[in-house]
Amino acid sequence: MRAPLFVVFEGPDGSGTSTQCQILCDRLRSAGHDITQTREPGGTKAGERIRSLVLDEDLEDLDHLVELFLYAASRRQLLQQVIEPALAGGKPVISDRYAASSYAYQGAGRGLGSEVVELVNDLATGGREPDATILLDLPMQLAGERRSRRGGRRDRIEAAGDGLQERVSLAYRQMAERDRERILLLDASPGVEEVATSVTRSLDARFPRFPYR
Amino acid sequence: MRAPLFVVFEGPDGSGTSTQCQILCDRLRSAGHDITQTREPGGTKAGERIRSLVLDEDLEDLDHLVELFLYAASRRQLLQQVIEPALAGGKPVISDRYAASSYAYQGAGRGLGSEVVELVNDLATGGREPDATILLDLPMQLAGERRSRRGGRRDRIEAAGDGLQERVSLAYRQMAERDRERILLLDASPGVEEVATSVTRSLDARFPRFPYR
Repeated sequence: MRAPLFVVFEGPDGSGTSTQCQILCDRLRSAGHDITQTREPGGTKAGERIRSLVLDEDLEDLDHLVELFLYAASRRQLLQQVIEPALAGGKPVISDRYAASSYAYQGAGRGLGSEVVELVNDLATGGREPDATILLDLPMQLAGERRSRRGGRRDRIEAAGDGLQERVSLAYRQMAERDRERILLLDASPGVEEVATSVTRSLDARFPRFPYR
Repeated sequence: MRAPLFVVFEGPDGSGTSTQCQILCDRLRSAGHDITQTREPGGTKAGERIRSLVLDEDLEDLDHLVELFLYAASRRQLLQQVIEPALAGGKPVISDRYAASSYAYQGAGRGLGSEVVELVNDLATGGREPDATILLDLPMQLAGERRSRRGGRRDRIEAAGDGLQERVSLAYRQMAERDRERILLLDASPGVEEVATSVTRSLDARFPRFPYR
């Protein structure tokens, strides 16, 4: 059996992780691949209820550690119920966000620090890491413009403001510097189609039999 | 200012923690004390939503670590939003369950072990421990009869069966043996009023100025 890959999209809010994850999954399915697409927080019955809680703007006084525990709960359930069974069954998994988001958002953005996040993440993931992470990077200003252009009501994390988003962006870049082997840093400032092309190109370059090892 | 006490009720399902907590709080209020009564999971807006999730019988495949993270999330929010402010303001706090429940239920009952629970609990509580824990103990058979007499639909933890409840009871007794100073083990097999009297008596004996130190 071909070894399926576990690929994750990461990036600050407004970088387009959801859009690019969807485009990649659509392309893979059109090419006839049976893949598992998922997202964090969410992706399971319990996870989607946790998602609605953790992103709820009405819970403005949610403690930062509570936020970390809730993301970890959603992550663990997703891993056990969806990701591990898919990989064990030979199906590639493409996820919109995973463990690195907690380092960026709760560790750096909220200021809990990487040690606390590592401790909780290691429990939640049991050591399961993505084979590749597509990190969508874009200049702070552009990310802010994209977020405000979305309109509608902002979720609890987006509403935390630009200071948090700056710390998140910086943390992602530092992660990419420390692990060039598995984190593919891509410029997300061009248009959607152009970014999608560079996503496909960099994955194909890294894994000649993508979405398999 | 008199130093307020933080007192917690613990025990297996059917031991009467909620009933006894309510009776004690009613008595203290009747005696003119301004106290804070709370419960776990729950006690805050976020916590009550976590409670409805973690006790939901429909989420039968909830991973045990997810359960631990959700209880920790509820505990942390309760501590930060309710317990710490009350104690800082001189108000005694009486809670139906707290951190020991995770050792008993997730650590022993679900088999996660005490090390994992300690790691998560220490993060959640930041070291805040109750001044006294009333541990309601009763013979396994009697607890089972009380749970089934309740009727109605069982929650997710109660539905996990007698094996879990046995491990929970045993873990509680072991905790009481290790910390006789702060854990007051009471026989919960007599009637409600008789148990309530022994709760009041043992707290008054331990703290002459109860609910203050």
